[in-house]
Amino acid sequence: MASLGHVTPQSMHFAEPLPLKSGAQLADYTLVYETYGTLNADRSNAVLVCHALNASHHVAGTYEGQERSEGWWDNLVGPGKPLDTERFFVIGINNPGSCFGSTGPMQTNPATGQPYGASFPVVTVEDWVDAQARLLDRLGITQLAAVLGGSLGGMQALSWSLRHPARLRHCVAVATAPNLSAQNIAFNEVARRAIVTDPDFHCGHFYAHGVLPKRGLRVARMIGHITYLSDDSMEAKFGRSMRAAELGYSTQDIEFQIESYLRYQGDKFSEYFDANTYLLITRALDYFDPAREHGGDLTRAFAAAQAKFMLVSFTTDWRFSPARSREIVKALVDNQHDVSYAEIDAPHGHDAFLLDDPRYHAVLRAYFDNVAKEARA
Amino acid sequence: MASLGHVTPQSMHFAEPLPLKSGAQLADYTLVYETYGTLNADRSNAVLVCHALNASHHVAGTYEGQERSEGWWDNLVGPGKPLDTERFFVIGINNPGSCFGSTGPMQTNPATGQPYGASFPVVTVEDWVDAQARLLDRLGITQLAAVLGGSLGGMQALSWSLRHPARLRHCVAVATAPNLSAQNIAFNEVARRAIVTDPDFHCGHFYAHGVLPKRGLRVARMIGHITYLSDDSMEAKFGRSMRAAELGYSTQDIEFQIESYLRYQGDKFSEYFDANTYLLITRALDYFDPAREHGGDLTRAFAAAQAKFMLVSFTTDWRFSPARSREIVKALVDNQHDVSYAEIDAPHGHDAFLLDDPRYHAVLRAYFDNVAKEARA
Repeated sequence: MASLGHVTPQSMHFAEPLPLKSGAQLADYTLVYETYGTLNADRSNAVLVCHALNASHHVAGTYEGQERSEGWWDNLVGPGKPLDTERFFVIGINNPGSCFGSTGPMQTNPATGQPYGASFPVVTVEDWVDAQARLLDRLGITQLAAVLGGSLGGMQALSWSLRHPARLRHCVAVATAPNLSAQNIAFNEVARRAIVTDPDFHCGHFYAHGVLPKRGLRVARMIGHITYLSDDSMEAKFGRSMRAAELGYSTQDIEFQIESYLRYQGDKFSEYFDANTYLLITRALDYFDPAREHGGDLTRAFAAAQAKFMLVSFTTDWRFSPARSREIVKALVDNQHDVSYAEIDAPHGHDAFLLDDPRYHAVLRAYFDNVAKEARA
Repeated sequence: MASLGHVTPQSMHFAEPLPLKSGAQLADYTLVYETYGTLNADRSNAVLVCHALNASHHVAGTYEGQERSEGWWDNLVGPGKPLDTERFFVIGINNPGSCFGSTGPMQTNPATGQPYGASFPVVTVEDWVDAQARLLDRLGITQLAAVLGGSLGGMQALSWSLRHPARLRHCVAVATAPNLSAQNIAFNEVARRAIVTDPDFHCGHFYAHGVLPKRGLRVARMIGHITYLSDDSMEAKFGRSMRAAELGYSTQDIEFQIESYLRYQGDKFSEYFDANTYLLITRALDYFDPAREHGGDLTRAFAAAQAKFMLVSFTTDWRFSPARSREIVKALVDNQHDVSYAEIDAPHGHDAFLLDDPRYHAVLRAYFDNVAKEARA
């Protein structure tokens, strides 16, 4: 299948402060974004793709001169792909607080001339959605054909349908949940404790010390990685495979392949991911809970939505299990909203939303095919 | 129900070195143990209780002058309890490498005059079983009525049936597995990385520096704790309960009750548990794999067993799931061994084996009742 080829990120500066849910505001910020395909004459074919923890505006395509620089959802987005860039104008935006170009903890706080670090304001899913909406205003897009996201990106898609109900026709939320469970929060909290108790964290102002809290980031990533995979897929991929033929009888050397794999993932992550961003994004996950303002009633929370919905979950996803998607489906059905739901029998756990499982992609292809026909009509 | 009342630990010194599975040996060591009840005239009513990661020889009863010093399985072991100390002579032994009195990393290495620290030899489930057997030799117990253990303790019970088949009549293994899965090893590995990358670990020789790697131990315990509980029981106990009525919008302050609970568990653990012991015991878990020496064939591994078996698992235990116990049951049935198996519908995850669920305790009571009748016959 043809790829998008080379893509180029753009950036947009906002002088008007962004009011945040916490009551604070983000002043003088920049968002980095990418677009693929062509906006049609009546500006009706735009699809916003929202990113999760460890991703960015770079959804698809490659960067010139950079090998293996495919976007994180390149298997889904491109010419002839399920989200077809020959029909849709696709937009990826890096959320504020992230570490991939948009204003975040690594950037200079204009008020102090120092990096924000731990003083970057706490951002929420709702704040991200509002920041995205402002960028779309500037692009002259008043209504999106669809908002699509997986995991934390799915939460943003859901939030779009609640905060800006008239601005999207379809909400496509994959492998997501109406809020985090106690176990989800627990895993986030352990990861955060690993980071903030790393002596190189320096209360979040490590930039000034010329160090990075890599120990904490490694542990955080290893924990996260375990929860992205299913028990079964880990067993199938690694099982009890040993690195050497004979046992080494060591508590610290690598004995099992799974140890090697996890350490590699942790090392890689600690080289490029910002520790303050990790704290901010996991907190945004913890806080997301649209039912909270409605006395815990998710049905009431979705009463104001106007979009049509497509929900997808994966059978072996124990981080955001199918039961969590079904809670959303129930709330939508209770409101007599138009909702489609697919529960994909896939072995890869939460990670399945990023893989090109044929049944999963067929479902999204068919859905976006209908969205495209509707947009043309 | 009557408690055992006050109990007193004893200790036994061994001048003869213990050969270890790794090829190394443990010289000049001491084991701490407790016994409850009375050994009968023909020495046929002894039951060995094996401990898991975070426990010791102190299985039941209390220590004089110490409030809340109940043994870790006090709800199961005592006069009139499922493992009835009016009928059985119950023995708890602290394994070498542990940090509760038996020779371990905190103790002085007679060869150097310094604490063993990270140089304490790597011990395995099989080594523990052999050390326990020697202590029983000295007590004049040639055959046990039963060996009982849960989790890692269950692995020791299984290992007894393989290494010393004629020395036990019954093997009672609760919430255990024939080996760790890739996911189990992965959680252990993250916990170990948290400990060994704590700057206060000092390559395992922190005793000399007057510090403890508490940061790492806290994270390790938090991870462990999440895996001991079921998703459902965490949800029921904590859900998304907040500490305060209003959100604080902080990445580091406690917002959710589950965070407070986990931090408390981590703090408490880091005060009393030895970091080197944590590494040793999680490694013993990783290494346990009786099928390994039989080409991965668990049925062949259990061919030599002579005991009768009782296996118990818990439906919501995702650390050592019922499927893992069923693998053991199948291997035993394949060998036409006498095996009973109970799968208890309990909500508490892996921790269920330590709780006094009435159905679970009724199963163990009935089983030990039969063991007692047999011993008298």
